[in-house]
Amino acid sequence: MFINTGKARNFCETLFCAYGFSIEESRIITDVLLRADLYGIDSHGIHRLVRYHEEITSGQVNVKAKPQIVNETAISACLEANNAMGQLASVYAMNLAIEKAKTSGCGMVTVRSSNHYGIASYYTEMASAHDLIGVSMTNTEAICVPTFGSQAMTGTNAMALAMPAEPFVFSYDASTTVVPRGKLEVYRKNNQALPDNWAVDADGKPCNDAALVVENIIAKAGGGIAPLGGLGTLHGGHKGFGLSIIVDLFSAVISGGLTSNYVNRQPGSTGICHYFAAIDYGIFGDKKSIKDSMSKFLQEIRSSKKSEGFDRIYTHGEREAELMAQRVNGKIPVNEKTLEEMKKIAVQLNVEFDLPAE
Amino acid sequence: MFINTGKARNFCETLFCAYGFSIEESRIITDVLLRADLYGIDSHGIHRLVRYHEEITSGQVNVKAKPQIVNETAISACLEANNAMGQLASVYAMNLAIEKAKTSGCGMVTVRSSNHYGIASYYTEMASAHDLIGVSMTNTEAICVPTFGSQAMTGTNAMALAMPAEPFVFSYDASTTVVPRGKLEVYRKNNQALPDNWAVDADGKPCNDAALVVENIIAKAGGGIAPLGGLGTLHGGHKGFGLSIIVDLFSAVISGGLTSNYVNRQPGSTGICHYFAAIDYGIFGDKKSIKDSMSKFLQEIRSSKKSEGFDRIYTHGEREAELMAQRVNGKIPVNEKTLEEMKKIAVQLNVEFDLPAE
Repeated sequence: MFINTGKARNFCETLFCAYGFSIEESRIITDVLLRADLYGIDSHGIHRLVRYHEEITSGQVNVKAKPQIVNETAISACLEANNAMGQLASVYAMNLAIEKAKTSGCGMVTVRSSNHYGIASYYTEMASAHDLIGVSMTNTEAICVPTFGSQAMTGTNAMALAMPAEPFVFSYDASTTVVPRGKLEVYRKNNQALPDNWAVDADGKPCNDAALVVENIIAKAGGGIAPLGGLGTLHGGHKGFGLSIIVDLFSAVISGGLTSNYVNRQPGSTGICHYFAAIDYGIFGDKKSIKDSMSKFLQEIRSSKKSEGFDRIYTHGEREAELMAQRVNGKIPVNEKTLEEMKKIAVQLNVEFDLPAE
Repeated sequence: MFINTGKARNFCETLFCAYGFSIEESRIITDVLLRADLYGIDSHGIHRLVRYHEEITSGQVNVKAKPQIVNETAISACLEANNAMGQLASVYAMNLAIEKAKTSGCGMVTVRSSNHYGIASYYTEMASAHDLIGVSMTNTEAICVPTFGSQAMTGTNAMALAMPAEPFVFSYDASTTVVPRGKLEVYRKNNQALPDNWAVDADGKPCNDAALVVENIIAKAGGGIAPLGGLGTLHGGHKGFGLSIIVDLFSAVISGGLTSNYVNRQPGSTGICHYFAAIDYGIFGDKKSIKDSMSKFLQEIRSSKKSEGFDRIYTHGEREAELMAQRVNGKIPVNEKTLEEMKKIAVQLNVEFDLPAE
């Protein structure tokens, strides 16, 4: 089932205005939200409206909050987001990092007391659009167990990096867990057993029961998802575990915010933290040569010999750019349940609902 | 089989002096080399002397080379290493990054035309010893296949980060492949089948034959090791693949050096590239609070509930710090073959060999 992209944009902007956000703010939130649908990252797209609705109406998201700079140097800032919508604190923070990178070569901005910020690559690509390297990280509620642990201590903790290149920006955006939480939910819905090495039960025993793992996560009853590299150390699970700690270091620890194990533990606020950096790679050498070298390296990878049975190697960001080109003036997928829930939200907020399924 | 740590240090220092390095340079190289043995990372320790001997005597390593700054700003530098010993270019580069971090908040130094630099954490811990965050990356000869590829395009491409904390510095140091090359060699030596998801043959087909994979790598005949996350995308192999590209971006692309797929392809030089960064985390807030928060978070992780059958969760750098405390005034392990080869090298260079097995 699909809906028209332009109509979805209009609807979301109107809806966010109805919550009390300004037109400009509503445009920003909508743009981040729909970028996920354009990129094919459905879990972070319009499907999230329902959860955002709950967070906004419950007051967990403060509609009137403005991010506040608590520490600043020529190359850095620490922001208190005051429970603002994650997208607004994040666009503000990345713009600040970009500005610093343009004047000082590099800008690093850490953000505390924010909320879910959508896809990490939205922000890194703000930097690459200015011909800068962009970095973005966010912590989330703890759902990832340490190597040899049975209690979730870190979140899916995404890391993203974008570097200008032709014909596609290199845009890496991934959780530091073996899979994101949404993937477990798909296995649960389909009554499918989880692959080995993905998750543990409340005792820390390897567990293939998707429903049990998801229910334990929701109830904060123990167990959780394995870090990238899986359970134990055989396939490098300790590496993913370390990367998730690094995300908490840059987003929560240096900002004075809450680490993943304290996120979503207090009513009234999530406490999510982010990190943004922009680097003018021209401080290292000639920008054209560096960008050309990146483009060449990526092209060599795409052109390298494929495995038997595969006819294409994608570099990061390529698939998303292709999908966006198709969808931006066309339509985006949506499931029936989400569409129904959006209709209910529209009624509740007295907003016109003109989103026919196509 | 063990040898006395102090005697090993004396022997290595004397040996490097015999190659033509200054006393100070010989001490640096030895310190990096033995740190690996102290940390239990045998693959990068004294065992490497044999390979370094070949690289130095063949002229691949230029004993007289001095690193040269080709581009510099208050927060950055790009170094041409002129085929110097990797450890020397790297200690110089990290010291420069530390100096810049102390005056400007952050220092980023990229290095081209270098050689194998030993363990990445040696350099990050130089920064943490100055109460800074340290970052270090290096590319290597390509042995890692892209997701869906059968031709190695990136190296084991290590990433390391150190952040001050009590009682242990958080020190992450890991390849971006599912396992380092040395691990495959251990499986080959033991005639053991490789675990699934680790490697592919020259056609890109999953391959459990350690000997075949290692021989293909040596002969540059195709195939190679999977990125962190394994083959395909099911367990996140595309994530490790992306991380390995990021290492090449920071070490090789922005330095104007050779990406992994060109490393060790020309006689006379390896072309290995590195990246170093030091960040004064005090630019974000009060240093004591930030460091305390990191220490607390790591302690919470170590104290969190263990999986059934496990009694300890290690944070990164903890195990290495414990091992070093035991070994630094004691002894380090060495295998018989390495000891024999060291004896031959000593004879060749007319250096006294006083390293009895203990």
